[in-house]
Amino acid sequence: MHIDASQILSGNTLSISRLLTKIENREAEAESVLDTLYIHTGNAHIIGITGPSGSGKSTLVNRLGSELVKGSGKRLGIIAIDPTSPFSGGAILGDRIRMRDLTLQEDIFIRSMATRGALGGLARAADEAVQVLDAAGFDPVMVETVGAGQAEVDIARLAHTVVVVEAPGMGDDIQAVKAGILEIADVLVLNKNDHPAADAAVQSLKAMLEMGAELKEASGDKKSIWQTPLIRTNAISGEGVGLLAEAIHAHRDYLQKSGERETRARKRVRENFERLAREEVFAEWQKNTGQEAYNQAVDAISRRELSPREAIKALMKSRRSEP
Amino acid sequence: MHIDASQILSGNTLSISRLLTKIENREAEAESVLDTLYIHTGNAHIIGITGPSGSGKSTLVNRLGSELVKGSGKRLGIIAIDPTSPFSGGAILGDRIRMRDLTLQEDIFIRSMATRGALGGLARAADEAVQVLDAAGFDPVMVETVGAGQAEVDIARLAHTVVVVEAPGMGDDIQAVKAGILEIADVLVLNKNDHPAADAAVQSLKAMLEMGAELKEASGDKKSIWQTPLIRTNAISGEGVGLLAEAIHAHRDYLQKSGERETRARKRVRENFERLAREEVFAEWQKNTGQEAYNQAVDAISRRELSPREAIKALMKSRRSEP
Repeated sequence: MHIDASQILSGNTLSISRLLTKIENREAEAESVLDTLYIHTGNAHIIGITGPSGSGKSTLVNRLGSELVKGSGKRLGIIAIDPTSPFSGGAILGDRIRMRDLTLQEDIFIRSMATRGALGGLARAADEAVQVLDAAGFDPVMVETVGAGQAEVDIARLAHTVVVVEAPGMGDDIQAVKAGILEIADVLVLNKNDHPAADAAVQSLKAMLEMGAELKEASGDKKSIWQTPLIRTNAISGEGVGLLAEAIHAHRDYLQKSGERETRARKRVRENFERLAREEVFAEWQKNTGQEAYNQAVDAISRRELSPREAIKALMKSRRSEP
Repeated sequence: MHIDASQILSGNTLSISRLLTKIENREAEAESVLDTLYIHTGNAHIIGITGPSGSGKSTLVNRLGSELVKGSGKRLGIIAIDPTSPFSGGAILGDRIRMRDLTLQEDIFIRSMATRGALGGLARAADEAVQVLDAAGFDPVMVETVGAGQAEVDIARLAHTVVVVEAPGMGDDIQAVKAGILEIADVLVLNKNDHPAADAAVQSLKAMLEMGAELKEASGDKKSIWQTPLIRTNAISGEGVGLLAEAIHAHRDYLQKSGERETRARKRVRENFERLAREEVFAEWQKNTGQEAYNQAVDAISRRELSPREAIKALMKSRRSEP
């Protein structure tokens, strides 16, 4: 069914849902609608939320969502990026369980997204989904990534405000991963505040925050005056969720006043543009190279006649010498 | 310092270490050495090991490594892929702690690798490191990925034999992630066998394995007759590690006899080739486009004058119309 950009701009949720499905399925129609919508983007405050599985992130996002827009008259968008099975490719759990709490409220639009296969497909879908909700007038737009792999972190860190959620008692060798994630946190959350190990976790997170601040200073990043706060929450009881919403609002105001919002927005544009350019340029190259020549190259590499790089050079050369 | 391919082929570990560092740093010299080494690859049995943080994977890999080559006269290579901080970019923990156990044995070469930034850089470095150890005569070569993000899974699943390590009591919302990871497992491990929740975890993993087998059957994949075994281990005491090594050897033999080794090797070649082609083609395009035109495009997108896709099309068109 044809989707009209004007339906998206007027906030028609049925049209929005359909467009997001077309984005997931990489249908060509999505592209032209996105092109039309693009000039209407750039208004929403984009909040990235990431952290390891088991941190209670999803429950927290549900609570936080309501809190963020409470009484403001604003409409909230949530994009939850689901890990996809490399084989069966389906979205898991997600919507049904979560929508119970949130979709009773009319001003919240929530969508779980999954993508099929391709590396980078997840990041592209996330970016395009944010564009859709942004153009449709949702503000803020939260992007939640499940898991703590590099791809998930890459998605979250392109937000205006990055919230990292941790929980006590998740094992010691997670520390190494944390160090990297903490560096991108604008707001750090320790959820499951009632856990017996919560105090110990707070100590260790504080130590890491200080280490991170020193690293930033040493690397000459003195421009940033934002001090990442550590907020303790209990997503089940709701304790601390109000404080978390305040911290996010404070960071939004900081970005605006310091001019850093512009810097981040530009970084987001640049990285998303580069990712898209990589895809499009490769797709065109592959089309021009032709399936047969491409398969022959794979054969030659498999037989160890050519190294992968030598095969690519040969393919590039043969294309250039064509009329 | 110049690296000679013949030093790698003779198994000189100092040269191997230096080459791996050049691969991490993306130095041009590494490329020509890799091209020369390539015809000597394709012999090692490549074992991918993945699973969530906190599963005791690293300890298990150390134990398993010794067990796999015990009395065989073979030399074992281990590449441990470390998550990298997006900012400070350093490798973490890794070598020093782990080498204590293993490097006393001469026939084991272990290396933690990290890469700086770029999406896909991790997978490329892992593939090239495997090529180096393969050409240097190490067999088997284990590739351990820390974490359970899509990028880590993508690296592990290109191995001949994929080992997925789980542990009891890691939280319930990890289940969703598991479903995807389990589908790529040739051998499934429940580590921390002495944990109070171990029996319950075994039941849930068995249920998932059965579900996975049904899904495969439903999708018409009747060719595969390998039944993924579930091995219980305790990496600390060493319990079950012998059984795990046997299961890996059994899978290697199965691959050989069924002809599936060839299929997997080809899939590995194809995916690695495509990833490299994407990089090289984009790098050439970017070079030809020029920094100025590229930056102007980013500016136009930031000002919402053009959508990212429109900007790419314009850049491609202007290149084509050049003499």
